[in-house]
Amino acid sequence: MPKISNKGKLMPESPIRKLVPYADIAKKKGHKVYHLNIGQPDIKTPEVALNAVRNNTIEVLEYSHSAGFESYRKKLSKYYLNHNVAVNIEDIIITTGGSEALLFALGSTMDAGDEIIIPEPFYANYNSFSVASGVTVIPLISTIETGFALPLIEEFEKLITPKTKAILICNPGNPTGYLYSREEIMQLAALVKKHDLFLIADEVYREFTYDGDVHYSVMNIPEIEENAIMIDSVSKRFSMCGARIGCIVSKNKEVIATAMKFAQARLSPPTFAQIASEAALDTPQSYFDEVILEYRERRNTLIEELNTIEGVIVTKPKGAFYCIAQLPIDNADKFAQWLLESYDLNGETVMVAPAAGFYSTPGVGLNQVRIAYVLKREDLKSAVQILKTAIPIYNSK
Amino acid sequence: MPKISNKGKLMPESPIRKLVPYADIAKKKGHKVYHLNIGQPDIKTPEVALNAVRNNTIEVLEYSHSAGFESYRKKLSKYYLNHNVAVNIEDIIITTGGSEALLFALGSTMDAGDEIIIPEPFYANYNSFSVASGVTVIPLISTIETGFALPLIEEFEKLITPKTKAILICNPGNPTGYLYSREEIMQLAALVKKHDLFLIADEVYREFTYDGDVHYSVMNIPEIEENAIMIDSVSKRFSMCGARIGCIVSKNKEVIATAMKFAQARLSPPTFAQIASEAALDTPQSYFDEVILEYRERRNTLIEELNTIEGVIVTKPKGAFYCIAQLPIDNADKFAQWLLESYDLNGETVMVAPAAGFYSTPGVGLNQVRIAYVLKREDLKSAVQILKTAIPIYNSK
Repeated sequence: MPKISNKGKLMPESPIRKLVPYADIAKKKGHKVYHLNIGQPDIKTPEVALNAVRNNTIEVLEYSHSAGFESYRKKLSKYYLNHNVAVNIEDIIITTGGSEALLFALGSTMDAGDEIIIPEPFYANYNSFSVASGVTVIPLISTIETGFALPLIEEFEKLITPKTKAILICNPGNPTGYLYSREEIMQLAALVKKHDLFLIADEVYREFTYDGDVHYSVMNIPEIEENAIMIDSVSKRFSMCGARIGCIVSKNKEVIATAMKFAQARLSPPTFAQIASEAALDTPQSYFDEVILEYRERRNTLIEELNTIEGVIVTKPKGAFYCIAQLPIDNADKFAQWLLESYDLNGETVMVAPAAGFYSTPGVGLNQVRIAYVLKREDLKSAVQILKTAIPIYNSK
Repeated sequence: MPKISNKGKLMPESPIRKLVPYADIAKKKGHKVYHLNIGQPDIKTPEVALNAVRNNTIEVLEYSHSAGFESYRKKLSKYYLNHNVAVNIEDIIITTGGSEALLFALGSTMDAGDEIIIPEPFYANYNSFSVASGVTVIPLISTIETGFALPLIEEFEKLITPKTKAILICNPGNPTGYLYSREEIMQLAALVKKHDLFLIADEVYREFTYDGDVHYSVMNIPEIEENAIMIDSVSKRFSMCGARIGCIVSKNKEVIATAMKFAQARLSPPTFAQIASEAALDTPQSYFDEVILEYRERRNTLIEELNTIEGVIVTKPKGAFYCIAQLPIDNADKFAQWLLESYDLNGETVMVAPAAGFYSTPGVGLNQVRIAYVLKREDLKSAVQILKTAIPIYNSK
């Protein structure tokens, strides 16, 4: 019998998926499960995007340009310009989700055995894409005590070897909700400039900032034009995760030319989804104002409620729609499983994502969970109430 | 300035794209260009598929299951059953085009430095996906004299090393149009069984067979259930290349479990395109009967016309919608460029794909071109007439 690849063996399982069978147990018992574990928003997709697809007059569903519709790239570059990110149409390649953008970025800049430094906790699939690309992740711990601020630049510098090719950040952060300040981004810029590294920034949550904080893009720094690669996606911005449209953006012409070869190999990004994404750019500002207001209130509710639980450590996130909470328990994996398998409050329970899956360093974050505030406020309240009543019972087992 | 990856440098350019600037020159002159170079059919997409997307009632465009809609996989397994390929829903993962299916297949079975044997000429992007996966392509020449039949099994065996992990075939073949016989497939089956290799079969053109020939799938051989991996796509079957939906199919549970980890990392295949693909399975048989008849007549016209050109060698293809023709010229790259840049017959010229780009061995196929018969018969006639008048003029330069 032929054997699967070592790469395939190394590919991590999703930190959430292994809980799915336990969620099924809870559902079989008739329990309602509040899903705090997923990044799938309940926000409606803009009508203008959905209608563009409904009203399409396609007769032959052809390949599009490998870099995506020219009309879409043109409109997208205007969108970025309006958001103070000065990029041109030729700096953009449309991809199948932010996922593919990241694969193209890694493939274009790194070879097997090369190293990429990523502050942790980080989006778990960074690990998967790195394994798929043969790249070694070098994690650098950021701590819950600082609210997951950027680790000291000296700490990054200690990790740089001749094999280091890039630093990858997620800003605002999934799973931390931390928004890097202009100062932090400038520190990273100086570092990548000094060591000739790429700075890959996953900015898919760029519009999700609260309390008047402003997102600062790596594309805004002329000094690192050749170093900066931005990853973006329509998934969260327009609540259209199922479209699978993202993009890779860089002023480095060699990077874009190389990513283009990867793009040509897979022919084109999906056509219907490009139609939706292009139309989505006409979404009125009022849609975003409402969405941001809604998320801010959800965040405030979630954090207030979490802070009523004795022993919980959590910082109010500044962006995205996640937070990491440290719970007064021994092991979040076991706790999350127990919540689904053995606990309910009036027939309701909750599913959280154990945070260890977002750390690359073994043994870190064992008593932390990631909570996505993608539910209505009433549901967030009920969900946290369940956590609150569950913790003492779990600890007294 | 940071440097791009060696992998990125090695990624081949599409053999067709480098001619695009010359096609632009021809178009600027006002010349009509017959595109014999592309695999984009002019056949209409089934209404039932397009209507399903037009009539969708989605409110939140959510991620789908990473393996694709369960309803779609269920229906697809029935489709295969009706086509004498006995696979179950759990043997199928829906992918973003056949391209992603191939990437998952390579990633799940091969590590950097591993070798894959591919009869050439082959679909140029097999090279790209291999480079992206760090895999080494070991080509084995099939010849125009045999109509690109399977090379002798002894020739395969000579190339097998401890690093060989798989054999990859395209059946019916792009760019050859060759349909492997049951006997040839059985020979390959015995070989992969003997050497514990994977047999990856790209069967995206399975329905496109002519003259009563029947496609024989690698999934039909119980003895190699653990070895066989099928790559499929809706692109050509339903003339919906822009959907970007394919699938990876295998009875080897470890392969599917591993491919599933790759699938989870990129979250899900595109939702609108899955809606179209699922609905497309209701396309009436009459659609296919018409399409196959149309392609058969196009093929007959093309081959008849080509055979009127002195010195051309071409075999009537048994499947897909391509053929490789050997022309009485020195170099197809130069000839193809010259056709666009400097030749026209009554204001019309033609674009062909030089076949060298479909060979991995340097210097082979230099006087061959790939011709796709995706144009109407009248246009095919006109296009070949242009080739016929052009060749003596080109040769007398």
